[in-house]
Amino acid sequence: MVPPLDEDSLIARFFAPIAGPGGLGLKDDAAVVVPPPGQDLVVTVDALVAGGHFFAEDPPASIARKALRVNLSDLAAKGAEPLGFTLALALPAGWTADWLQDFARGLGEDAAGFACPLLGGDTVKAAGALTLSITAFGAVPAGRMVPRTGARAGDRLYVSGTIGDAALGLQLRLGRGAAAPGNEHLLDRYLHPQPRLALRDALRRHASGAMDVSDGLVGDLAKMMRASGASAEVDLAAVPLSPAARRACDGDAAAFDIAVTGGDDYEILASVPEGEAEAYEAAAAAAGVPVAAIGRVVAGSGPALFRDRGGTPKAFARGSFSHF
Amino acid sequence: MVPPLDEDSLIARFFAPIAGPGGLGLKDDAAVVVPPPGQDLVVTVDALVAGGHFFAEDPPASIARKALRVNLSDLAAKGAEPLGFTLALALPAGWTADWLQDFARGLGEDAAGFACPLLGGDTVKAAGALTLSITAFGAVPAGRMVPRTGARAGDRLYVSGTIGDAALGLQLRLGRGAAAPGNEHLLDRYLHPQPRLALRDALRRHASGAMDVSDGLVGDLAKMMRASGASAEVDLAAVPLSPAARRACDGDAAAFDIAVTGGDDYEILASVPEGEAEAYEAAAAAAGVPVAAIGRVVAGSGPALFRDRGGTPKAFARGSFSHF
Repeated sequence: MVPPLDEDSLIARFFAPIAGPGGLGLKDDAAVVVPPPGQDLVVTVDALVAGGHFFAEDPPASIARKALRVNLSDLAAKGAEPLGFTLALALPAGWTADWLQDFARGLGEDAAGFACPLLGGDTVKAAGALTLSITAFGAVPAGRMVPRTGARAGDRLYVSGTIGDAALGLQLRLGRGAAAPGNEHLLDRYLHPQPRLALRDALRRHASGAMDVSDGLVGDLAKMMRASGASAEVDLAAVPLSPAARRACDGDAAAFDIAVTGGDDYEILASVPEGEAEAYEAAAAAAGVPVAAIGRVVAGSGPALFRDRGGTPKAFARGSFSHF
Repeated sequence: MVPPLDEDSLIARFFAPIAGPGGLGLKDDAAVVVPPPGQDLVVTVDALVAGGHFFAEDPPASIARKALRVNLSDLAAKGAEPLGFTLALALPAGWTADWLQDFARGLGEDAAGFACPLLGGDTVKAAGALTLSITAFGAVPAGRMVPRTGARAGDRLYVSGTIGDAALGLQLRLGRGAAAPGNEHLLDRYLHPQPRLALRDALRRHASGAMDVSDGLVGDLAKMMRASGASAEVDLAAVPLSPAARRACDGDAAAFDIAVTGGDDYEILASVPEGEAEAYEAAAAAAGVPVAAIGRVVAGSGPALFRDRGGTPKAFARGSFSHF
């Protein structure tokens, strides 16, 4: 099918209505971003490919929401306030106006809901499946971005929310796993990440380092420790699981491994100095975000040590989800 | 083939060496961009797909350079000084370390040459052909971005450099067109855009509006006039052609149509108020960039009027290159 729209009409029809003021009505080659005085601009980019990061048959609005939210999750981990985003969209052959309308609606609703307007973009024809990348902009007080590299020996390690829901939801999408109450929750966690923006002040005030858990807790923790020049000890029994995930993992060691090594959590892993731990917990509670202490940063450059409920060290065959 | 590298190793090996200071060694989820005091941040994004915007078999260094330069061309048209860029790269199955090494080398050389460092990115597996998008950041004095919407009736229209070389080069790549001296020039213009960053001060000081010509002069001029709520009269004989393009177009009306409607010029189309025209020409000359007056902005909302050498109005079947 030859789509009935050229790129300009497509932008005017679907995307201009969801653009923010800096996007200049999407009529220009460029957008203007003005960070508030005294603030640094934080920039993050995530690319998503149908079949890799979502299913091509997912609702278009859900695909759009996920693409924006995984970037907002990065901003949250850096303690940054969203300012806006740009979208590069490669549409596969056979796209329809209905599909794009639904995509733009989901994107627009999230852009409004998270106060992160569309600023600009580019729409091209894909050579294969739907591919999109979002670059999101946020602001932090100058010099105050929460770094991935900041974890220090002695810090407590916290994760927000619950771990493994989305990875177990993906298993359900792949037809693995039995029917059970709570499966809807797992499926929804896979489809609709919830960026922890509410945690950003707590992170900026109290965390030494942070990252969002997007490729699995075990692997992402290893990344953060490598970046920080440290190691860690983690108590696997302390990793917070939702009731649905706990049900899936009860007596199923393989499911638990998936929960802690699979991707798409979009929770925040933070290192917090001992003296700040109480304040961090209080600030997170005040923000309405549950956080759980799962271990400690320790000196050294070796792999993190994971202990199971009985205290036995546990190794993981596959530390994290890799798109390669 | 299963590539021998996970994403982190790939980043550390190929991309970290070309990252700028704001890129934090590409070890974080995010980069920091700090516009100079009193400056606005200008953001632009361009996506490129193998088979659409370049040939998959083009030298990897050339693909990288083109991806960066088409974005730098947008910054140039806005009068912006480059600050850095992010890269979203979807690699097709079968990529090799040699390919990526060459890609990163080309990207790094251009990043250094144009003082526009890599700040961050994301690398994923493509679902089809190589797909990449770059988001580039630039700075302009607050409120001084040169808009696409600024053309006003009475302004002169200028283009920089020469028009049509890349479109004619693409024809050669497609096996159309005869062997001729100068073909190498046309082929190189297709492969290696030359962003007109040297023109940015002249544009900021003297132009009422500007855009880069990426999808063909005829169609891009129409876009700029629509965005400005104006129309235009263009003298086709005044459109500057390189000697090689002139040779290709001599006595070949179809080749001339390709030259003025084909894409990939990456020259700057600018509207300049009559009172600023002399100063614009002088500033461009001082910057070493040839500019040619090709017509005028006129009142109205109809399509631009193109006149050929004899003054006869000429219509184009196809105004611009469309990726749809």
